[in-house]
Amino acid sequence: MKGLAMLEIGKMGWIEKEQPKCGPLDAICRPIAVAPCTSDIHTVWEGAIGQRHNMILGHEAVAEVVEVGNLVKCFKTGDKVIVPAITPDWNSLEAQKGYSMHSGGMLAGWKFSNFKDGVFGEFFHVNDADGNLALLPEGMDPAVACMLSDMMPTGFHGVELADIQFGDDVAVIGIGPVGLMSVAAAAIRGAAHIYAVGSRPNCVKIAKEYGATDIINYREGDIVEQIMDKTNGKGVDRVVIAGGDVDTFIQAIKILKPGGTIGNVNYLGSGDFVQIPRTEWGCGMGHKAVNGGLMPGGRLRMEKLAALVQTGRVDPGKLITHRFEGFEKMEDALLLMKDKPKDLIKPVVTIKW
Amino acid sequence: MKGLAMLEIGKMGWIEKEQPKCGPLDAICRPIAVAPCTSDIHTVWEGAIGQRHNMILGHEAVAEVVEVGNLVKCFKTGDKVIVPAITPDWNSLEAQKGYSMHSGGMLAGWKFSNFKDGVFGEFFHVNDADGNLALLPEGMDPAVACMLSDMMPTGFHGVELADIQFGDDVAVIGIGPVGLMSVAAAAIRGAAHIYAVGSRPNCVKIAKEYGATDIINYREGDIVEQIMDKTNGKGVDRVVIAGGDVDTFIQAIKILKPGGTIGNVNYLGSGDFVQIPRTEWGCGMGHKAVNGGLMPGGRLRMEKLAALVQTGRVDPGKLITHRFEGFEKMEDALLLMKDKPKDLIKPVVTIKW
Amino acid sequence: MKGLAMLEIGKMGWIEKEQPKCGPLDAICRPIAVAPCTSDIHTVWEGAIGQRHNMILGHEAVAEVVEVGNLVKCFKTGDKVIVPAITPDWNSLEAQKGYSMHSGGMLAGWKFSNFKDGVFGEFFHVNDADGNLALLPEGMDPAVACMLSDMMPTGFHGVELADIQFGDDVAVIGIGPVGLMSVAAAAIRGAAHIYAVGSRPNCVKIAKEYGATDIINYREGDIVEQIMDKTNGKGVDRVVIAGGDVDTFIQAIKILKPGGTIGNVNYLGSGDFVQIPRTEWGCGMGHKAVNGGLMPGGRLRMEKLAALVQTGRVDPGKLITHRFEGFEKMEDALLLMKDKPKDLIKPVVTIKW
Amino acid sequence: MKGLAMLEIGKMGWIEKEQPKCGPLDAICRPIAVAPCTSDIHTVWEGAIGQRHNMILGHEAVAEVVEVGNLVKCFKTGDKVIVPAITPDWNSLEAQKGYSMHSGGMLAGWKFSNFKDGVFGEFFHVNDADGNLALLPEGMDPAVACMLSDMMPTGFHGVELADIQFGDDVAVIGIGPVGLMSVAAAAIRGAAHIYAVGSRPNCVKIAKEYGATDIINYREGDIVEQIMDKTNGKGVDRVVIAGGDVDTFIQAIKILKPGGTIGNVNYLGSGDFVQIPRTEWGCGMGHKAVNGGLMPGGRLRMEKLAALVQTGRVDPGKLITHRFEGFEKMEDALLLMKDKPKDLIKPVVTIKW
Repeated sequence: MKGLAMLEIGKMGWIEKEQPKCGPLDAICRPIAVAPCTSDIHTVWEGAIGQRHNMILGHEAVAEVVEVGNLVKCFKTGDKVIVPAITPDWNSLEAQKGYSMHSGGMLAGWKFSNFKDGVFGEFFHVNDADGNLALLPEGMDPAVACMLSDMMPTGFHGVELADIQFGDDVAVIGIGPVGLMSVAAAAIRGAAHIYAVGSRPNCVKIAKEYGATDIINYREGDIVEQIMDKTNGKGVDRVVIAGGDVDTFIQAIKILKPGGTIGNVNYLGSGDFVQIPRTEWGCGMGHKAVNGGLMPGGRLRMEKLAALVQTGRVDPGKLITHRFEGFEKMEDALLLMKDKPKDLIKPVVTIKW
Repeated sequence: MKGLAMLEIGKMGWIEKEQPKCGPLDAICRPIAVAPCTSDIHTVWEGAIGQRHNMILGHEAVAEVVEVGNLVKCFKTGDKVIVPAITPDWNSLEAQKGYSMHSGGMLAGWKFSNFKDGVFGEFFHVNDADGNLALLPEGMDPAVACMLSDMMPTGFHGVELADIQFGDDVAVIGIGPVGLMSVAAAAIRGAAHIYAVGSRPNCVKIAKEYGATDIINYREGDIVEQIMDKTNGKGVDRVVIAGGDVDTFIQAIKILKPGGTIGNVNYLGSGDFVQIPRTEWGCGMGHKAVNGGLMPGGRLRMEKLAALVQTGRVDPGKLITHRFEGFEKMEDALLLMKDKPKDLIKPVVTIKW
Repeated sequence: MKGLAMLEIGKMGWIEKEQPKCGPLDAICRPIAVAPCTSDIHTVWEGAIGQRHNMILGHEAVAEVVEVGNLVKCFKTGDKVIVPAITPDWNSLEAQKGYSMHSGGMLAGWKFSNFKDGVFGEFFHVNDADGNLALLPEGMDPAVACMLSDMMPTGFHGVELADIQFGDDVAVIGIGPVGLMSVAAAAIRGAAHIYAVGSRPNCVKIAKEYGATDIINYREGDIVEQIMDKTNGKGVDRVVIAGGDVDTFIQAIKILKPGGTIGNVNYLGSGDFVQIPRTEWGCGMGHKAVNGGLMPGGRLRMEKLAALVQTGRVDPGKLITHRFEGFEKMEDALLLMKDKPKDLIKPVVTIKW
Repeated sequence: MKGLAMLEIGKMGWIEKEQPKCGPLDAICRPIAVAPCTSDIHTVWEGAIGQRHNMILGHEAVAEVVEVGNLVKCFKTGDKVIVPAITPDWNSLEAQKGYSMHSGGMLAGWKFSNFKDGVFGEFFHVNDADGNLALLPEGMDPAVACMLSDMMPTGFHGVELADIQFGDDVAVIGIGPVGLMSVAAAAIRGAAHIYAVGSRPNCVKIAKEYGATDIINYREGDIVEQIMDKTNGKGVDRVVIAGGDVDTFIQAIKILKPGGTIGNVNYLGSGDFVQIPRTEWGCGMGHKAVNGGLMPGGRLRMEKLAALVQTGRVDPGKLITHRFEGFEKMEDALLLMKDKPKDLIKPVVTIKW
């Protein structure tokens, strides 16, 4: 079979590979909608996860099941399914503890285009089909549903980690596709003011539609000062970090009230230390909780998020700025992601077989 | 001063009383918007809280501060304020434990028209002004803000007690003004499907506007059956009880999934025992949590809810079906509440001095 | 193979059965220590879970692995293992939600001697060996470890459900083996006063050794009055229910402070309704949370509890009042459990093959 | 009146001051047992909280009430009371949110020897007596009870912040008096293995008595390596930080499992940034929560901790290595704390009037 792969650090290309084998609990799927992710770019061109050879890329997909193992009970050939980026081993100790995304080791619930071939092939393998796939709801656009693989669960998890309560003032730092989902999630989690930190016009527009009350543009001054001004010097109750780097935590701590919480879902690709400013962290005693975590994957999560889309609580389709059709267009979509034109939020490739 | 009072069980009337005294931490207020509550009706005509003589009624008010004690720091004469129905003693052991509404004893955070005169007088007394009042935000309609005294915090607390998570299916039993607020709260707390149980057309209309996806009318069949049908026999993740009686818990437990939670905010006025059906409660082992609690009051809560109104997350003004003007119209409003015409949700009386 | 079985309601006896088959994820085990449970008695002689024919009894065991499926990674033939009474399907939606004991339906994580043959056979089947077994720690007495199958996790879960915090006053109602484990758990969860409700001298003695500060004997007067007296009329912060019936909740609610929590782990075998007294429950608003749940099973739980035994935090061996040796002694042990002599807490049968 | 004061940074001495005035909610107390704290040393000789002139030192005391304000209900002249180091304003927004220690601003619940005169005077002032004092239980040694002002609540809070669950493996970094209390708290919160990091023989001995299973001495090698070795490379579930500096978090993160939690109660006196190692923090996604907070003070907390001492769950008296008698001995005790001889854990001064 054919797949779009990382050949080695810095090189991407089409390869031929043997079709994956289906174990007794597994499924083999064929993609019908896929989306490239910034992390695919980091993986190939920055070597973010280390060297890989001829590994098929991609971890965001809606697909059709073409084969299931003999112990699979809930899915059958022909089913259309949402595939989460994170596919845990549900009987692992980590999953039993509530941290399925770290099953088998820290971050090891992330398997596609990390430990095994991703979804940018003619076929791909899903471990524990019953535990990790969810039926595509009747009538849901596969391109939209594709946002449920990673963008929506990651953005929503930022809000969960930040522990937003009714009426809280929230800052969302970074309004790429994940941060935009955090804005939407904050609004339907009970936030009052949402300070969305970003500058690209397309993103700003969607942030407002998703519920941001204030846009904080770093080009218009220090974001800490801007937020402190707007909150009369009090700061915010919660911060979701969905962009930036290890230094972003300095700003986050500075704008956070005592008793507040940071939820980070931004992959920190470089720097030795995440920086927590000592004084503003109350010299270790300010009750400013710092959380950060990989999205939860698996079937239940996909079903819950799909229900939010079906009931109209959130429309992740707004993220899609570019649509492609045809398997071979994966390459164009990925290169677009690499080039990151100003109006890009998220491209999707739909595939008819 | 004049006030509309419970004379004794079964009798309401205007009385003359001495103006309340202001302690060092207190405030004396003059109402500018008040709303009667079903519990005022229960208090007078059903003797729900026992005998009272010449006690001024009412616990929902927006007011003007006319006097403050010498230790009050945050409020001054002339301030317009939202007054919560529950005004805790914040240094009590119960408040220190996180249950301020029970400061001084179970439910004893409820003082107005319970242990002392309520807000239906020319003046009323507020204990711990700094801890219990909140400034009326610039530009907010006092009549709308009056919904923050009791209806909104009670409805929202039902949702908090039910512990709604992203994508949960939720039933809200009872869609009077409190239940409607629970519907609105569930929608901005992350619920997917919201099954609103009720029948009055006016309430049904508002329930839909607030985010109910399905209306369950008990006149169209057993509500348990209807909800089980709509959920393919699975039931819901959470139930908010905002109406009914001690038997309503039977239905609530029946429609609840294992691992689910009930949040009750309905005052249960009669019956010896709240009934938890043994078998459907998993013979004591089904992890169906049963919570019930009085709304949290105080300043922070009022500020948080006001922020949700200001940012347009929720509009409690939709509850107001009848508006009156003038202090003496409190009587008409209260009698309207007693008669409960079909189209009534909530009346408000605004007062110009 | 041979096994001690429920023949039908009211009848127990030895039967011959085919040895269970091992699926790819499963293990076949041979018991080296087993304990009968009160629920075995209820199952056979009261028909508590309905009719069953020739079902092998027992769900508390330490065992030797004699066969593993080809997908099992963490266990091999010859391993000595602790077997939890509850063996969930870890990829189920319920487990993904955190309620693995209800995987496949309410209480359906309980499989041994319920949906399939139990551990009182020469061999027994364990689903998902990697997810559900735990290695018997070097040097741990299998008889003592047998208390980890059900007694210790159930008793400890009562304390978890009751949400005990540092310095809380706690009542434990019922001091059979499960209740005694709740007493021990409360003491190492941070309780201050522990009011243990029971009367049998043997149990009273162990309750004190496990950390009970006060014994409340119902023969010496109403337990509510006794506890209210000892707490100066304030009541307790938490109640663990490990005995009694549907009416026990009346007492539990009465002795509970507002803001308190009940954790029930008692199987309620009869009665239509669990009774929550309306007035003492604050008319639905007293913030007296009512929780009840089946113990969590699985590997992690067994490992965690074993660690508590290894580090000397708790000694579940104190529960064992009667020891038997030899496979065929299972019958004697079970009948002893049925007769329940005054000095019985828990019998264990150890088996050498 | 006389008091032992910080004259300015670097200088300590006895001063004469006017006796404090008692507001309507306040109490004036006379110390009967006091203890110096390392932070007193930092305050005077390192200027940790900035310049102060003629400020009476000390924040750990048991005292006799000599005057109460006219609104005080629960205490009267002659009462012997435990005085917490943190005395919040309970009606503040921060306290209403559950963070009373930050009432009026981050860390501002700490008033004694910070914003106002401390307890090393003939008399001292307590704000909100009803909310902040607790009766000394009958028969409790005032010297022992003095450990409840700061050492015990701070150590216990570290364990609360680390969110220890049954069977967790826990590292406690630093076993001065606060860390020792964390060891004791971990043991009665359900920890299994407790790895206590420290080297002073006296502290090591008490750590073992309080429940440490392993002593990790940094003089015997890298503490990260030692702990990883002892846990078979898995690390621990929770870390309590009660010593060290901003770099200690590097070690804490390294030994922590994904899904684990750090609870810091160590005052970080220098360094620009608390260092969170990026890679070991899962590049921001490892679910290693970083918490840090000032102890909760107030009456309820004191009562709860006193109940733990009364019921024999913990004996904070073991911390006391040096006892002095007489008001004027405060100076010796403080200088002893400054010199920190090898065998010192905690000195106490008792005073007879």
